[in-house]
Amino acid sequence: MTAPGSQPAQQGARSLDPHLSRYAARTAGMTASEIRALFAVASRPEVVSLAGGMPYLAALPLDALSADIGRLVATEGLTALQYGSAQGMPELREQICEVMALEGIRAHPDDVVVTVGSQMGLDMVTRVFCDPGDVVLAEAPSYVGALGTFSAYQAQVVHVEMDDAGLVPEALRAALAAVAASGRRVKFLYTIPNFQNPAGVTLSVQRRTEVLEICAQHDVLVVEDNPYGLLGFDGQTYPALRSVEADNVVYLGSFSKTFAPGLRVGWVLAPHAVREKLVLAAESATLCPPAFTQAVVTRYLTQHDWKGQIKTYQEAYRERRDATLSAMEQHLPSGCTWTKPDGGFYVWLTVPEGLDTKAMLPRAVTQRVAYVPGTAFYADSFGSRQMRLSYCYPTPERIREGVRRLAAVLEGEMELLSTFGTVHRRNLSGPQTPTPDTA
Amino acid sequence: MTAPGSQPAQQGARSLDPHLSRYAARTAGMTASEIRALFAVASRPEVVSLAGGMPYLAALPLDALSADIGRLVATEGLTALQYGSAQGMPELREQICEVMALEGIRAHPDDVVVTVGSQMGLDMVTRVFCDPGDVVLAEAPSYVGALGTFSAYQAQVVHVEMDDAGLVPEALRAALAAVAASGRRVKFLYTIPNFQNPAGVTLSVQRRTEVLEICAQHDVLVVEDNPYGLLGFDGQTYPALRSVEADNVVYLGSFSKTFAPGLRVGWVLAPHAVREKLVLAAESATLCPPAFTQAVVTRYLTQHDWKGQIKTYQEAYRERRDATLSAMEQHLPSGCTWTKPDGGFYVWLTVPEGLDTKAMLPRAVTQRVAYVPGTAFYADSFGSRQMRLSYCYPTPERIREGVRRLAAVLEGEMELLSTFGTVHRRNLSGPQTPTPDTA
Repeated sequence: MTAPGSQPAQQGARSLDPHLSRYAARTAGMTASEIRALFAVASRPEVVSLAGGMPYLAALPLDALSADIGRLVATEGLTALQYGSAQGMPELREQICEVMALEGIRAHPDDVVVTVGSQMGLDMVTRVFCDPGDVVLAEAPSYVGALGTFSAYQAQVVHVEMDDAGLVPEALRAALAAVAASGRRVKFLYTIPNFQNPAGVTLSVQRRTEVLEICAQHDVLVVEDNPYGLLGFDGQTYPALRSVEADNVVYLGSFSKTFAPGLRVGWVLAPHAVREKLVLAAESATLCPPAFTQAVVTRYLTQHDWKGQIKTYQEAYRERRDATLSAMEQHLPSGCTWTKPDGGFYVWLTVPEGLDTKAMLPRAVTQRVAYVPGTAFYADSFGSRQMRLSYCYPTPERIREGVRRLAAVLEGEMELLSTFGTVHRRNLSGPQTPTPDTA
Repeated sequence: MTAPGSQPAQQGARSLDPHLSRYAARTAGMTASEIRALFAVASRPEVVSLAGGMPYLAALPLDALSADIGRLVATEGLTALQYGSAQGMPELREQICEVMALEGIRAHPDDVVVTVGSQMGLDMVTRVFCDPGDVVLAEAPSYVGALGTFSAYQAQVVHVEMDDAGLVPEALRAALAAVAASGRRVKFLYTIPNFQNPAGVTLSVQRRTEVLEICAQHDVLVVEDNPYGLLGFDGQTYPALRSVEADNVVYLGSFSKTFAPGLRVGWVLAPHAVREKLVLAAESATLCPPAFTQAVVTRYLTQHDWKGQIKTYQEAYRERRDATLSAMEQHLPSGCTWTKPDGGFYVWLTVPEGLDTKAMLPRAVTQRVAYVPGTAFYADSFGSRQMRLSYCYPTPERIREGVRRLAAVLEGEMELLSTFGTVHRRNLSGPQTPTPDTA
């Protein structure tokens, strides 16, 4: 859309914004994520979306929840609908400690801060620790929402290599040395040790101690983001980094995947002095988290078989993981490789050299399958040969159909490649400029 | 609490925090607000709290809400408990436009961003506009939570004088000139035009145009915070600044006072280009606002007589305002002056010279009455002769008792003053250092 403007023409399209000169410098780092644009695509019923990370809520007992939440309003409405404290409700913080105990964490409710999803936890931790130009280490690839938060605080992300056993300790040492040599300062390592988003891999138990030791040696804080830890497909749980080392780990948790994301109830567990800063930061950010959604979670944990519900989720996701991997095995062309998650929501797929997952996305959507291109999960320009496939939401049957469609798209792209030597003409004309999301 | 530390003794008490050297510079501006510490005091049943701004939720029809929210979970649970969009649900944004129409605002739902209370709206607006060192103009006094947010972004607050007709235009011009002369840049004027928190005064209709013109002339954005606008005691509404001028006003709204604060549903209405930035900022802050609380508000606005509920609130608060003012008239010692709110939650009281409202707070709490000292509402050290009295929550009878107790405290202080020439010895020994909150 262009408009005949009162603005000088030489300023170009952006001159249409009269507030342009007013924005804070940090807005330069706020750009639309590829996942965000994909929400629209994912909602079209004919498209099999392997893009979004929406939990399979059909597994929830809605009728029982309905009755229970109704009772909550009738009997505790005056507190559940009122302002609460910035730190979150004491009873919920006690329950959160019980949840974390399942992964070996011993914590005091006083060191827990309830947040509006663990995304807000990330935002608060970054606010408290990162000045512009500070470095955050993150796995390569890493959670797109975390990259967005770091960017909003003008922190610089340095990626650290992973393999099938998670973060590679040697790569971590090398990254720390490289950042130190560049004269910058690492504020923390951001890691998703379990069933990582987007890679689907898990940090081995042996490496956990090693990663903690390396960070302690280099005086670098560890931020452990653990939304999927209780969703291991064999019921296995790994010891949280926080369970091994309490003083140097800030832990982020969430009820989004073990209960429901629409409540936006997450938390941060932090060393006491850090917790004090986080509460002040949270108070200026939202005053207090919603008392109502906290009360709903508290009641759910009290009245319902929440451990049984987690088992139900595990089974649903295991079935979907199995459908995904067997369909990939059966249909994907040779030259593709992928991770084998034993929990969580995601498979990370690498396509043959010469293909570009972002460039081929419009073709995939035309063929009624969606995914998230790998570039979304890197702060730099890597990931063009990767994509994230989410198996959490569709039925196994739809997943199989989606993988079949994806295989057809990949085969079509490979055919173009072998015929013409290239798939996407623009790749020939030098470095790609950022483009608007293509769907 | 002191501990025999491994830390060098010369670093003092703060050395107990091993993370001290890691924090971002902005944490220096994050300090505990006086209101926050008072939440604890306010909860003791024997204290009449005229401190907190908690709405009188007993006026809500909890049984009807209970049934309705129960139905919501049963019939729409799969969407209400799922992730939503960062901007907020379309249906709610349409309803928000209808609510704003009551104050003369014509807006498109696409320019509305749903936030976790209007506090998050404030946080997002500050994030998008303020670099460290930028100036925000705010009324003197102003909302304590806004001052906290500005401080967290290292923005500097310059206060602008008010009188009984709100912000004084001449003072606004003078402040703009003074900031320009100091070489700093004003990013926006933050104003609460209706039933201001904490002063209880309202910007006159004539001044609204004048304030907008002055800001336009000086190329300064206006941030209009309007949580109380529909709570005029004679059913009167004032034209929103946004209704007069659309392009240069960012409007903050909230359901906390017209429905319930425990849901934390607020919104920002902004010019289109600004709205785009706000959505990106919000996405990195919380991913999306809770779908569940949005669905509750949407259903409430659809199924309940929400305008009737606002009338009920108006009547409850008018009765309490009347009880407050008549008790003040009857009991407070001469030399006290106060504002006469015709809506909202607050009276702003000025006590006789020589008294210090912050220093006398512990004595007031001992005599079982609580308020917020005036200094909380200034970014500088003003307000020591003022206090905010909130009449929104207690019954009229309790309010009268609270004012009686407060009058006794003030008389005791004045007696000390006339006998000894001073009440608080430490005021004699030079500038006061910040003290921990005294209750």
